[in-house]
Amino acid sequence: MSPERLARINAMLDNRQPDLTVCLEHIHKPHNLSAVIRTADAVGVTDVHAIWLAESGRISNHKASGSGQWVDVRSHTSTADAVNHFRDQGMQVLVTNLSEDAVDFRDIDYTRPTALMMGNERDGISAEALGLADQQIIVPMVGMVQSLNVSVAAALILYEAQRQRQQAGCYGVRTLDPVRCQRHLFEGGHP
Amino acid sequence: MSPERLARINAMLDNRQPDLTVCLEHIHKPHNLSAVIRTADAVGVTDVHAIWLAESGRISNHKASGSGQWVDVRSHTSTADAVNHFRDQGMQVLVTNLSEDAVDFRDIDYTRPTALMMGNERDGISAEALGLADQQIIVPMVGMVQSLNVSVAAALILYEAQRQRQQAGCYGVRTLDPVRCQRHLFEGGHP
Ligand SMILES: C[S@@+](CC[C@H](N)C(=O)[O-])C[C@H]1O[C@@H](n2cnc3c(N)ncnc32)[C@H](O)[C@@H]1O
Ligand SMILES: C[S@@+](CC[C@H](N)C(=O)[O-])C[C@H]1O[C@@H](n2cnc3c(N)ncnc32)[C@H](O)[C@@H]1O
Repeated sequence: MSPERLARINAMLDNRQPDLTVCLEHIHKPHNLSAVIRTADAVGVTDVHAIWLAESGRISNHKASGSGQWVDVRSHTSTADAVNHFRDQGMQVLVTNLSEDAVDFRDIDYTRPTALMMGNERDGISAEALGLADQQIIVPMVGMVQSLNVSVAAALILYEAQRQRQQAGCYGVRTLDPVRCQRHLFEGGHP
Repeated sequence: MSPERLARINAMLDNRQPDLTVCLEHIHKPHNLSAVIRTADAVGVTDVHAIWLAESGRISNHKASGSGQWVDVRSHTSTADAVNHFRDQGMQVLVTNLSEDAVDFRDIDYTRPTALMMGNERDGISAEALGLADQQIIVPMVGMVQSLNVSVAAALILYEAQRQRQQAGCYGVRTLDPVRCQRHLFEGGHP
């Protein structure tokens, strides 16, 4: 591995935010999954969670422009499983929902360990997820369309988290576990 | 038209920002155009500009989830044409570019009349656009992938503009020209 590439990977590892994650519930368009994975990588998210409907095939993440190696896609077969996983990590669970009860996404503290749940392209977030979450959040809209594209909404929230975490000094300090760092350093040399 | 729908359209019109626009140079994936149009509507952008390559067919915006009626897509056959149009309106012209010369998108004043130019999915922004623009801007990334999805990058910048303009009191004050307002009020009653 060239010294430049080693330095690049080490800088990336210093910016990883293992206590920030995003979870996609029943997303069915591959380009939306791809776009979310690219954004996740760009803000330092290490794992993207996906809840798949049993009957639907899993969509692959081959098209996420080379991010597959750097962001792990972790599958769950139910919403409860995914939320339990986030609770085990001490994360607040935020669901995006186009509702009057939802809080403006900029009014949330994302420096806390956080899991962000995004809903299906057509039906939105499930009633189960709504019931399990700590908080509903929304990206305000002042036009006539009813919703944003799901990967767009995810990006707006993840970049707000990035902004807050940068101000709080969360970047440039390695918190990712050493085993995973070794894996990335090893795989990064053998792409 | 019901009183509720009339009120909704009037509120939308009060939030329109005719001096903020986005321009897509040679974008070829319809879902990216759709996503940008939805975001544009959501922040109050009235016109999305598209520069089409002569040989490529124009992509339609039928899939922008009902926003077609509320956001006009204006076509140009060359980058120079589009930039001239923005200059005539006194707009600063910003190009997104993954370069060391680009400024962090959060360091720009979007309360000024602004045109934001986004590049092609594969090749990015053209040399011509770079030469004509006032400023290159970038959304910072701390991972390993090289770029964001184009509709994601556009949304992050448009919502930063929305944030700044909201703070500056630009929303809730009608500035859209009366003829266009009448058109929307008329068409909104006859969808
Ligand atoms: C196309 S939307 C789903 C629309 C669905 N008809 C509904 O009512 O929820 C798909 C997902 O994108 C996200 N999303 C879209 N617009 C959003 C907004 N303004 N605020 C927060 N999340 C949004 C949510 O995760 C949503 O479940
Ligand atoms: C997939 S990118 C193009 C990548 C191309 N290889 C390049 O080097 O420009 C498509 C468009 O998305 C926008 N874009 C993607 N990532 C961006 C970022 N981090 N900052 C600003 N714009 C970005 C730009 O408009 C870019 O032209």
